[in-house]
Amino acid sequence: MSDTAKRQPRVLCIGIPVRDLTFRIEAVPGRGNKVPASSFGEICGGNALNAAIGIARLGGKAQMCGPMGDASEAAAGFIFDKLAEEGIGSSGLIHMPGLVTPISAVLVDPTGERTIVTFRDPGLWKVALPDADTLLKDCDAILTESRCSSFVTPLCAEATRRGIPVVVDVDNAMSMNEGLLTAASHLICSAEALHGTAGIADDAEALKKLATLTHAFVAVTRGPKGTLWLDDKQQFRETPAFPVHSVDTLGAGDIFHGGFTVAYGEGQDIAHALRFASAAAALKCTRPGGAFACPTRAEVDELLAKSPVGAL
Amino acid sequence: MSDTAKRQPRVLCIGIPVRDLTFRIEAVPGRGNKVPASSFGEICGGNALNAAIGIARLGGKAQMCGPMGDASEAAAGFIFDKLAEEGIGSSGLIHMPGLVTPISAVLVDPTGERTIVTFRDPGLWKVALPDADTLLKDCDAILTESRCSSFVTPLCAEATRRGIPVVVDVDNAMSMNEGLLTAASHLICSAEALHGTAGIADDAEALKKLATLTHAFVAVTRGPKGTLWLDDKQQFRETPAFPVHSVDTLGAGDIFHGGFTVAYGEGQDIAHALRFASAAAALKCTRPGGAFACPTRAEVDELLAKSPVGAL
Repeated sequence: MSDTAKRQPRVLCIGIPVRDLTFRIEAVPGRGNKVPASSFGEICGGNALNAAIGIARLGGKAQMCGPMGDASEAAAGFIFDKLAEEGIGSSGLIHMPGLVTPISAVLVDPTGERTIVTFRDPGLWKVALPDADTLLKDCDAILTESRCSSFVTPLCAEATRRGIPVVVDVDNAMSMNEGLLTAASHLICSAEALHGTAGIADDAEALKKLATLTHAFVAVTRGPKGTLWLDDKQQFRETPAFPVHSVDTLGAGDIFHGGFTVAYGEGQDIAHALRFASAAAALKCTRPGGAFACPTRAEVDELLAKSPVGAL
Repeated sequence: MSDTAKRQPRVLCIGIPVRDLTFRIEAVPGRGNKVPASSFGEICGGNALNAAIGIARLGGKAQMCGPMGDASEAAAGFIFDKLAEEGIGSSGLIHMPGLVTPISAVLVDPTGERTIVTFRDPGLWKVALPDADTLLKDCDAILTESRCSSFVTPLCAEATRRGIPVVVDVDNAMSMNEGLLTAASHLICSAEALHGTAGIADDAEALKKLATLTHAFVAVTRGPKGTLWLDDKQQFRETPAFPVHSVDTLGAGDIFHGGFTVAYGEGQDIAHALRFASAAAALKCTRPGGAFACPTRAEVDELLAKSPVGAL
């Protein structure tokens, strides 16, 4: 950790909260089939919201910002309760008149793998965020989702100009001339989204292609295969995954992004921040409950101290 | 139609209402994938409840009976509103302390095929129904679901003893010595449930096997392939499906059962009642909205009058 380490980095998390309806099943049903679930739960989710939970648990201060459904919508009220319980600010959430808060059916199988169907009203992308000076005041880092590019790019560009790290969770295929690719300081991609954006199915080749489009740090998370990234000399580096018995991968990628942003916001270097993120995501996978299964800072620090995996 | 035709048969529908969360998708996701939905809706469902909607729309009087979640559960309140809108009695629904009303994620693809994941708390099967004299008073027919066998069988046996038709929607594989197989007067099965119950994958062979276990009328519904059944001489008969452009098959089987029960309860013979049911189910498939897309009696009568399909 560097001498300039900051405690409790304040992270502005910009994204679209989602109602996650989780079903535990034996296997994803084939088309036309009916399958029983052994349990059901309604939690909240969405990449940035899950990451915000990670940030709050792992040592940062998180503030949520982004569009929600209509203020009269009772069904999504529990999202605010959950954010308050986690100590996450929600004053940046903006109710969109007449719209429905996004909702997901999340199917979790016995290996912990999750399969997701999500409805997001396209009108949510028309949200107008508060002005940049307000949002960036006291902001040590931004964490956002690639699918918010239509409303988040100008703010991210301004943050990058001000030297504030902008970590983007690239979770859907983006256009190669999408402004958010250059407005970000850190692009951490799922493999599918990276392949879709680069038009290349090979992780390393796709990452190289992405690096030609942006000055941002680029990485691809690959679950149990660990994280592949390009260092500042454009050399490939790998951060291994911590081997765990996985029971629920829901939100693991988001906890990874949250963990990375906290660690990097504290002043840890990239390699240490990625290892920290990897440990947080691994521990999350060992417990059911989406992002609410995120470990505490102490648990992550303990795993980092005792495990030789990826030790730096 | 026979001379003893009764108008507005009063049908006691016994089953477990379900909150149906419907998502329209391009294709059922593969394991581990995330797919977007183009629309979302929350409706109510469950076999007997859907059939009750069919009965109310098609000329009968329906009364719902069965277990629900805890009375304090706000999320399922809309089910009572929907029943009231349809003119269906709900006084037979019994709140189960501490339990959750069943919930389904229903994925509907562009061909109208539906794929369903359902959570039902096993505690719901411990419901105690009101006494038989109360329930069977003014009852012209019972329609129930095979998965309710644990709490519905004694009542069905008593109804059969009293000469009241008991139509069972066999929608899950049953044990071959399950009492409901003999307590019913009419077993109308999905193909999967029939195969699972008989342990035979061929429709005709499975139906023959089922007929050896019960005195009830036996039939298997097969979507666009029509209905296969055994007549009172134990000869195979087929009722063809009406060819339609299907956009949503959710609830189609239930509307079939509701339609059959209304028609049979009016005094129509088996062949006419099956053709009536087939017409109602076909029209339902042409519209989205689960059982709420059930046609009116007038629409079904019109299709029956003008279409040569299966004319008797």
